[in-house]
Amino acid sequence: MDLGTIIGLVAGFGLIGWAMMMGSGIMPFVDVPSIIIVLGGTIAACFTYQRIPNVIAGFKCAIQAFLDKSTSKADMIPLIVSLANKARKEGLVALEGEQIDDPFLARGVRLGVDGLSPEVIKEALAGELSALKERHDRGQKLFKFMASTAPAMGLIGTIIGLVQMLQNLADPDAIGPAMAIALLTTLYGAMFAFIIFGPIAEKLTNRTTEETAVKKMAIAGVESILKGDNSMVIQSKLMAFLSPEEREALASE
Amino acid sequence: MDLGTIIGLVAGFGLIGWAMMMGSGIMPFVDVPSIIIVLGGTIAACFTYQRIPNVIAGFKCAIQAFLDKSTSKADMIPLIVSLANKARKEGLVALEGEQIDDPFLARGVRLGVDGLSPEVIKEALAGELSALKERHDRGQKLFKFMASTAPAMGLIGTIIGLVQMLQNLADPDAIGPAMAIALLTTLYGAMFAFIIFGPIAEKLTNRTTEETAVKKMAIAGVESILKGDNSMVIQSKLMAFLSPEEREALASE
Amino acid sequence: MDLGTIIGLVAGFGLIGWAMMMGSGIMPFVDVPSIIIVLGGTIAACFTYQRIPNVIAGFKCAIQAFLDKSTSKADMIPLIVSLANKARKEGLVALEGEQIDDPFLARGVRLGVDGLSPEVIKEALAGELSALKERHDRGQKLFKFMASTAPAMGLIGTIIGLVQMLQNLADPDAIGPAMAIALLTTLYGAMFAFIIFGPIAEKLTNRTTEETAVKKMAIAGVESILKGDNSMVIQSKLMAFLSPEEREALASE
Amino acid sequence: MDLGTIIGLVAGFGLIGWAMMMGSGIMPFVDVPSIIIVLGGTIAACFTYQRIPNVIAGFKCAIQAFLDKSTSKADMIPLIVSLANKARKEGLVALEGEQIDDPFLARGVRLGVDGLSPEVIKEALAGELSALKERHDRGQKLFKFMASTAPAMGLIGTIIGLVQMLQNLADPDAIGPAMAIALLTTLYGAMFAFIIFGPIAEKLTNRTTEETAVKKMAIAGVESILKGDNSMVIQSKLMAFLSPEEREALASE
Amino acid sequence: MDLGTIIGLVAGFGLIGWAMMMGSGIMPFVDVPSIIIVLGGTIAACFTYQRIPNVIAGFKCAIQAFLDKSTSKADMIPLIVSLANKARKEGLVALEGEQIDDPFLARGVRLGVDGLSPEVIKEALAGELSALKERHDRGQKLFKFMASTAPAMGLIGTIIGLVQMLQNLADPDAIGPAMAIALLTTLYGAMFAFIIFGPIAEKLTNRTTEETAVKKMAIAGVESILKGDNSMVIQSKLMAFLSPEEREALASE
Repeated sequence: MDLGTIIGLVAGFGLIGWAMMMGSGIMPFVDVPSIIIVLGGTIAACFTYQRIPNVIAGFKCAIQAFLDKSTSKADMIPLIVSLANKARKEGLVALEGEQIDDPFLARGVRLGVDGLSPEVIKEALAGELSALKERHDRGQKLFKFMASTAPAMGLIGTIIGLVQMLQNLADPDAIGPAMAIALLTTLYGAMFAFIIFGPIAEKLTNRTTEETAVKKMAIAGVESILKGDNSMVIQSKLMAFLSPEEREALASE
Repeated sequence: MDLGTIIGLVAGFGLIGWAMMMGSGIMPFVDVPSIIIVLGGTIAACFTYQRIPNVIAGFKCAIQAFLDKSTSKADMIPLIVSLANKARKEGLVALEGEQIDDPFLARGVRLGVDGLSPEVIKEALAGELSALKERHDRGQKLFKFMASTAPAMGLIGTIIGLVQMLQNLADPDAIGPAMAIALLTTLYGAMFAFIIFGPIAEKLTNRTTEETAVKKMAIAGVESILKGDNSMVIQSKLMAFLSPEEREALASE
Repeated sequence: MDLGTIIGLVAGFGLIGWAMMMGSGIMPFVDVPSIIIVLGGTIAACFTYQRIPNVIAGFKCAIQAFLDKSTSKADMIPLIVSLANKARKEGLVALEGEQIDDPFLARGVRLGVDGLSPEVIKEALAGELSALKERHDRGQKLFKFMASTAPAMGLIGTIIGLVQMLQNLADPDAIGPAMAIALLTTLYGAMFAFIIFGPIAEKLTNRTTEETAVKKMAIAGVESILKGDNSMVIQSKLMAFLSPEEREALASE
Repeated sequence: MDLGTIIGLVAGFGLIGWAMMMGSGIMPFVDVPSIIIVLGGTIAACFTYQRIPNVIAGFKCAIQAFLDKSTSKADMIPLIVSLANKARKEGLVALEGEQIDDPFLARGVRLGVDGLSPEVIKEALAGELSALKERHDRGQKLFKFMASTAPAMGLIGTIIGLVQMLQNLADPDAIGPAMAIALLTTLYGAMFAFIIFGPIAEKLTNRTTEETAVKKMAIAGVESILKGDNSMVIQSKLMAFLSPEEREALASE
Repeated sequence: MDLGTIIGLVAGFGLIGWAMMMGSGIMPFVDVPSIIIVLGGTIAACFTYQRIPNVIAGFKCAIQAFLDKSTSKADMIPLIVSLANKARKEGLVALEGEQIDDPFLARGVRLGVDGLSPEVIKEALAGELSALKERHDRGQKLFKFMASTAPAMGLIGTIIGLVQMLQNLADPDAIGPAMAIALLTTLYGAMFAFIIFGPIAEKLTNRTTEETAVKKMAIAGVESILKGDNSMVIQSKLMAFLSPEEREALASE
């Protein structure tokens, strides 16, 4: 899982938990029905918003995006160079048994080993890349929708609680706790939206940009391997995908 | 009707109903005048917003979009292939009595059987497709307008209730229930906007994209049938309309 | 006046009036100073927002847009065809005394009767059309501005009322009514914005689109009349301006 | 100064002052520290938002835009025609001592009298025009920023006041007035944003559009004067800059 | 550090501090846990929003942008002219030991002294420029994200405080201070967003525009130095980068 996301979520909820602890403990803030209303209502709205398979695909893609151990741009270069060297020395077939860490690159190499023409391989990989973009895009839109819906569900829950409280003003001692519980859905709505859904939607966008760049490098790399480019040529070709900063970082290693 | 929409609406309102039940039952939350103000006010604003026939068309299109049992992209291929085979074996006229499930495809085939030239058929179907897009677009804009107007109507209703309450503070026991009722229009406004109107507006957009793709396949299919393409050629032509994922799903069937 | 606008405004204010009646009668909701603050403040801001002649033109155009009895696209066709027939039989001059319902078309025909060349007439009408668009656009922007300013004026009025109330807390019985009156400006602001200004701004946009299409038909029609096209040719030319739906509606008449 | 702006500001503040007078007089609404917080805080944020010279230039340009007595499009035509006539009769040099009301036109004519080539003059005037646009644009952005910052400063001031009030609840009689004062910053924030900054930002945009048109006419006019066009030609050239409405207004004079 | 930013931040916080002092002193407004929740929560969300290295780079770039003593456009001209003169008199190598204040220009000159071809130098500098833009862009997006997240964290903190207060209504004297503290996170959120994060995000955008222009001048300057252009030619080339206003300011010096 993406380390930044873990840190962000743990720190965010940790800080809030700590703030709760300091005052009165976490328990007064835990109300299962309130969580069900906000989270359940948000997910229910997702199904009105998108067809069922698309909602499921959206969630899957979000999870996958955080589990995906994608190769960094800098790691891609030596990986491709070593494969190219082997192919040049022992022939393309030697790559058959090769253990390649990046699954996208691996698929491209395997197609090459299977004897498909470079054009067909390029098209197949490009098709896969556009499918990945579409999947990420759907996931991102879903999370943006959830980020805007969760606070609304929180508001709905709070109004329901307020109405219930207002109709039973007989016992003054019950007013405070009832209002406290009514406010919890607003709290959950804001927390879900601003600590989880919103930032994750943004991270999915950033991930798409990064992964697209890495996968474009892989496509260029497979092309070079099949052509039999030497390692100098490959390196200079792939370097063009790096920003000046990344090039410097690579050089200083 | 679209299953996701049913699930979304039932689950959304079910959760809210359950939240109400847990506290005090649903009855305190049902106030017919409040519903009339929010829903009636929103619909009234629609007539100021759009000409009468357009408002009616917008609602019709929204309902139709959910009833429309549109054929999926994957189902379109065997349907077209079998029609093409029959036409190649028995001649175009053999399609006359054919029962075709997709009404758009059926209309295209009927035009072909009637002897119209492919260009005329293509143009007629394209015109129908653009009319469908325009209709959906109008429905979507109408629902977006309603999603932004409903909370405003809720606010107006709540202020009216508050003003009435504030002018009769003599009986302290009446304050709570009066304020509870005043809040109901805000609750209805939020519920209509975030559980119904907003997500439906989005779904209409998604439906338009999907149906456009299916109808473009139908147009290409009719063209192929008239040309007398063999099933291999048709299949490969129609495959181009599928995303890599859909192709995989079709292959694994 | 546009029927939908009348229905929308009457129904909207009727519903709100009915809601007020049910509770306490309309009188507690009528406060002339509050209306003056919200409406006057909004109009005052318009003058800071736009030069004086533009503000006046904006209001005029809005009123005119609702009074304008513009010809529908479907009615345009027989109108033009009958004029063309008369011109072909009796010569262009026969149109001199003709009573033409659509003023835009009438002006075009009159220019033709006066002997101006088709190019000059087309340019003159196109110029008038773009002036109409600009006028509508200005009116629409003005109403959008008012829709966003009215709630702000309502807020300002409410805060003023609250401040006055808070400084005189001596008499507890006066607090309720004072706060009720303070809330009225917020109520007026929301009502003006969401029932009147906002929807009217949108309707002006829609009207512009529709009238532009009708006027483009008129321009094409005048061109055909001057050319002496026969009614079949004119009809097929003008049909291209209709959407498939409108064509069907026309055919079924 | 632009008359509309004066009317708008005077009417806006007049109405608000009248509303205050009717209740309790204006004095309870005047709190110098509150004004300093809202206005000072907004201006302070401007310096974080833009470099110092740009902030100063932005304010200057806003003031200048309202003082600038720019010539109207309609007045431009006789002005240019009379200059051209004089130049044709007595030679370009005769314009040397001419008193020209529009400073932009005057500068162009002076450059011509000084013997610069038409291309150089056109370029110089175009450069000045783009500098004017940039200046206006900067002023407009600054006022938009202030329109969004002022309410936030008002909110900050109100919260500060509330916190101070809440920490001294001992004397119940002080609560009302304390809260009244706390609300004043919110009132000021809304008034500055919606009566002054927001509308002025919009007017600057409109002014830029208008002045650009007038200055383009001046550029075309100078070109015509240097070329020695006769008044008929100049008039028809400059007429093209007017909208059909303005042409009509000019013709009916 | 950028003087305007210092003035803006000092004045903004100074005014707020002064407003606090006038009422009750600053101490009641200092609550370390509240600061930790708002600032910590905002920073935590940043890590969910962006990958760790990007968050760090974003902060670094923001700091650097304010420390960077970038040369002004006007100062660039004499700097480049004097370097060009020296190079023309004593040869390019004479620039070797030259102390050049602008680091970007210095790098370009050094590459020239090292004998690289003008094309290579231009490309290298352009690459560095685009990397700078990307870095600024990332920093700007991060601050915009923080400006929208901080108020949400403030809201979350306030609701937590309210819930805690509502559950302990036994001691009426504790209600006021508890609510005061609950409001502090909202205050911090608004202050961070509207006084710090938001304006800084905008300033980073403005800085990028300015620095890009200066660096483009530097690139053109290095090109001229290598070509051996004389000072007149260089001056007129670089003048094209200035706006008419800046040219005037330079001329009047």
